[in-house]
Amino acid sequence: MGNEGSYVVLGLKTWNAQIDRADKLFGGLSSEEVLREIAPGRNRLLYLWGHLTAVHDAMLPLLSLGERLHPEFDVAFVSNPDKSRAETPSHEQVRQAWNVVNAELRKGFEKMSWSDWLERHSAASEEDFRKDASRNRFAILLGRTNHLSYHLGQAMLGLK
Amino acid sequence: MGNEGSYVVLGLKTWNAQIDRADKLFGGLSSEEVLREIAPGRNRLLYLWGHLTAVHDAMLPLLSLGERLHPEFDVAFVSNPDKSRAETPSHEQVRQAWNVVNAELRKGFEKMSWSDWLERHSAASEEDFRKDASRNRFAILLGRTNHLSYHLGQAMLGLK
Repeated sequence: MGNEGSYVVLGLKTWNAQIDRADKLFGGLSSEEVLREIAPGRNRLLYLWGHLTAVHDAMLPLLSLGERLHPEFDVAFVSNPDKSRAETPSHEQVRQAWNVVNAELRKGFEKMSWSDWLERHSAASEEDFRKDASRNRFAILLGRTNHLSYHLGQAMLGLK
Repeated sequence: MGNEGSYVVLGLKTWNAQIDRADKLFGGLSSEEVLREIAPGRNRLLYLWGHLTAVHDAMLPLLSLGERLHPEFDVAFVSNPDKSRAETPSHEQVRQAWNVVNAELRKGFEKMSWSDWLERHSAASEEDFRKDASRNRFAILLGRTNHLSYHLGQAMLGLK
């Protein structure tokens, strides 16, 4: 095997490690705990969990792995702040969507070859990509892993 | 150039992006603001900044780029919790150390070839590394970038 594979393996390993941490952190919360704010007046844990789910869901088309499964999550967890809407997905809906979306990503990642990761991601036009080859799928993986870590650091503060 | 370079470039780009965010966030704080807690009873911004500085400083020997510059930061910012010690480095000392340590890392990264990143990091023995080739320098880079993102998410909460 060439060296290319090693870098991709490390990128995926880092992603999986953060997903595991998030599974443990969010998955262990009761329906009462999930409504806790991470700090007074700040986002609730459920909002962060839904936000991460929506952003991971959007990775499916970005990486050309398929259509979004939960585009309706955006209105509740991305384009509007927490506590601004009367109706948002429930604890159970967020838990299910989180699990399904991440399983779908895992399945998609397994089918990708090493060089696939250096292909254009779908939010960059072919011209964008010709000018800047770093607008590729590996950049999305690294960026979204860091996005997950960022919010995990916040979510930790919401545990008693 | 082989594809290997592309993955390393992306890893470094992600690192630099988080360092830039941290520079802006911490670098813009007054000596009063830096003593703010990120949430009631939680770490102060200065502690997070010092903690990140200590962890980045420790990357120098880990990546075989040189000796640590500020091993004395560990007692204040790693092995003891915030507000537990009477004497800790000042705002100005943390600012300077942060800048010097990250500049030293940048200089070291520039000298590394792509394949250097797949070499053993110094906390893994040769036997560890034979058993698990992912105990390499690229794993340290990705891991520490996520560690930075994790605490940046928390630090954001300390801005008014």
